Amino acid sequence: MMDWSFATAAAVLLALGPERLPAQPPDDASPASSNVPGARSPSIHRDGRVTFTLRAPDANALQVAGGDGLGKGPFPMTKGVDGTWSVTIPGPVPGFHYYWFVLDGVSVNDPGSETYFGYGRETSGIEIPEPGADFYEVKNVAHGEVREQWYFSRTTQQRRRALVYTPPGYDKYVSRRYPVLVLQHGLGEDETGWTRQGKAQFILDNLVAAGKTQPMIVVMDRGYASMPGTPQFALAADSRLRDLHLAFGTFADVVVRDLIPTIDASYRTIADRGHRALAGLSMGGMQALFIASHHLGEFAYIASFSGPPVYGTDPDERLDTSLQGEFDPKRAYDGLFSDPAKFNQRIKLLWLGAGTEEKELHARIRAVADTLRRSGVPVVFFESPGTAHEWQTWRRDLFDLAPRLFR
Amino acid sequence: MMDWSFATAAAVLLALGPERLPAQPPDDASPASSNVPGARSPSIHRDGRVTFTLRAPDANALQVAGGDGLGKGPFPMTKGVDGTWSVTIPGPVPGFHYYWFVLDGVSVNDPGSETYFGYGRETSGIEIPEPGADFYEVKNVAHGEVREQWYFSRTTQQRRRALVYTPPGYDKYVSRRYPVLVLQHGLGEDETGWTRQGKAQFILDNLVAAGKTQPMIVVMDRGYASMPGTPQFALAADSRLRDLHLAFGTFADVVVRDLIPTIDASYRTIADRGHRALAGLSMGGMQALFIASHHLGEFAYIASFSGPPVYGTDPDERLDTSLQGEFDPKRAYDGLFSDPAKFNQRIKLLWLGAGTEEKELHARIRAVADTLRRSGVPVVFFESPGTAHEWQTWRRDLFDLAPRLFR
Repeated sequence: MMDWSFATAAAVLLALGPERLPAQPPDDASPASSNVPGARSPSIHRDGRVTFTLRAPDANALQVAGGDGLGKGPFPMTKGVDGTWSVTIPGPVPGFHYYWFVLDGVSVNDPGSETYFGYGRETSGIEIPEPGADFYEVKNVAHGEVREQWYFSRTTQQRRRALVYTPPGYDKYVSRRYPVLVLQHGLGEDETGWTRQGKAQFILDNLVAAGKTQPMIVVMDRGYASMPGTPQFALAADSRLRDLHLAFGTFADVVVRDLIPTIDASYRTIADRGHRALAGLSMGGMQALFIASHHLGEFAYIASFSGPPVYGTDPDERLDTSLQGEFDPKRAYDGLFSDPAKFNQRIKLLWLGAGTEEKELHARIRAVADTLRRSGVPVVFFESPGTAHEWQTWRRDLFDLAPRLFR
Repeated sequence: MMDWSFATAAAVLLALGPERLPAQPPDDASPASSNVPGARSPSIHRDGRVTFTLRAPDANALQVAGGDGLGKGPFPMTKGVDGTWSVTIPGPVPGFHYYWFVLDGVSVNDPGSETYFGYGRETSGIEIPEPGADFYEVKNVAHGEVREQWYFSRTTQQRRRALVYTPPGYDKYVSRRYPVLVLQHGLGEDETGWTRQGKAQFILDNLVAAGKTQPMIVVMDRGYASMPGTPQFALAADSRLRDLHLAFGTFADVVVRDLIPTIDASYRTIADRGHRALAGLSMGGMQALFIASHHLGEFAYIASFSGPPVYGTDPDERLDTSLQGEFDPKRAYDGLFSDPAKFNQRIKLLWLGAGTEEKELHARIRAVADTLRRSGVPVVFFESPGTAHEWQTWRRDLFDLAPRLFR
């Protein structure tokens, strides 16, 4: 019944199988929800420890490495008699963590994992459940949709893709109009981050179902943009503040001149600044404040999730040395906060957040919040307990922020 | 200005960079459009050859391997003085091809490539342009949307995700209703295949813009389903026809009882059989005919793209030996074609296709088409010249099929 080429595909599928089905997971462990269907590794033990396995009979060395939240890696794996390597690591903090194998010195994905765009490439990831936390789960509630929206940017002269979340009932209540939240990813990530890693659509679905937030449209774009003929922005050890301004400035133009008009033309938005919010994580948080400082008339709500504050004002200043600077509320962000009365008149909410475990960044963002408050600018400062520069922090940020918007 | 954790992310990004930016591509070569942004390898030469590179100073052996369309691999790579391995392979046929590296015996993704779900895992892929063919490109035309639709299946008692293409203007012409094409992926792939590998949304956008096809809604679901408490269907060397029937039967129930009612309730469909089509590639083509044979009342248009014909009728028959069988139009597919007059009354179009280079399958599908015609069942048989069991065949199939639907 089966053709050779179909049979070949089936045979390859079967041949690949053993690599990702090397053994039954330990009795007290279950495959991670972030695995591809059928993959038994990585698996999570009842006590939170995680076991990774990979069949690699000819490899000389194998490790698991990953983002901060995974723990103090890299973790050397040991080879079993059947050529399957494995390691069990202490329980990581709950949430989503990027990880990868280091196979004879090369960083590669785990074939057992779905892939998630981070570090400028497709990367493996593991979801560690948080006991008692289900605000980002797919629940039995009305769901919104995530839509792929292609549009032409006059700024970059290129087609771009944005992902757009429309809330539950959007297609049903055809005369209702909605406010808009622009929500940006971090460095090395892309427009898929907030729905794949962040589960923003389920956070919003659940908040709307509970009556805790206004139904809103959420727009997620790709946070990179360069003018025609100029190279893509690449963060480097010798980047200067002006490089950042150039890159963020082009992206700001894309958002304000191209993206927002596209969204207002394509969806039933309430197309005024009072119904428009801008938020982002890490680099996206930097961008939110940068864009606000140049386009204060476009957004009434601004939020930065773990966004490194920009202290410097000298365009020649190097990005990685400006940690030494002082935050001057009169001069920072091109004077965004220099006139608190004017700022407060325009901005209904300035929201800053950080995880308590992203130690230095947490302290710096809190200090900025305190300085701003003292200067007369109200700030909501939100702490995510026990989490670092990672998605569980940002999921909690969104969960806290969304109910405060468009009130 | 930068926090340590942000700086860490940036440092990792930079550290990862050299692996996928090992060298300038050769002067006459350009990075593939299927690469992640910024990745220079793989690159495609003007004469069609492809160069793959990977930095792996400590590896002992490295190869490139991939699907049929890539060529007669695997291709051994050679190590340069700087630890970067490379190989240049003869020009593959145009279109999309899965591939992977074999690094010291382990199949791993290329960090320079986006990932595409195939072979039951996330896999690297390369897009080889076809001179003169732009029917699947993102053009400057009105675009439809691809939407993520979550729904609950009473059949499997699980939440499922379908992707739904709505045509250009869907949100604008709010009183217009549309016909529906259900379009399925192949074995080892999932609901993302038709938009990521197949570019179905752009094929439809371009056809609609040219006035060559009716605007339609396209629904892409995950072609796997199992009843609660039963294991997922896994094709194996000893699978019997009854295993297939069980797996496809559950999926058929999902489509007819859960998916179609969800789509009819959620979108402005024309909710009758005359405006409903069912198509799929490879395993999806088998499923299209299987579902038609059990739910003839639901669809007026049926298409199988490179779908291995099911010859056997004995449930104990092994799947991989039934190639020896005869196609009996009276008995095959539970008698779907046993009464041509009745079949023709209900089905407006039966469409079968194959690539000329999937030799045996092509011959068998053509033989089935001939046998059916002789028995009194009209069939459109479409050949994709020069392509095998691969996405370029299926893109062309959709491009031929769509204008024939809903006339």
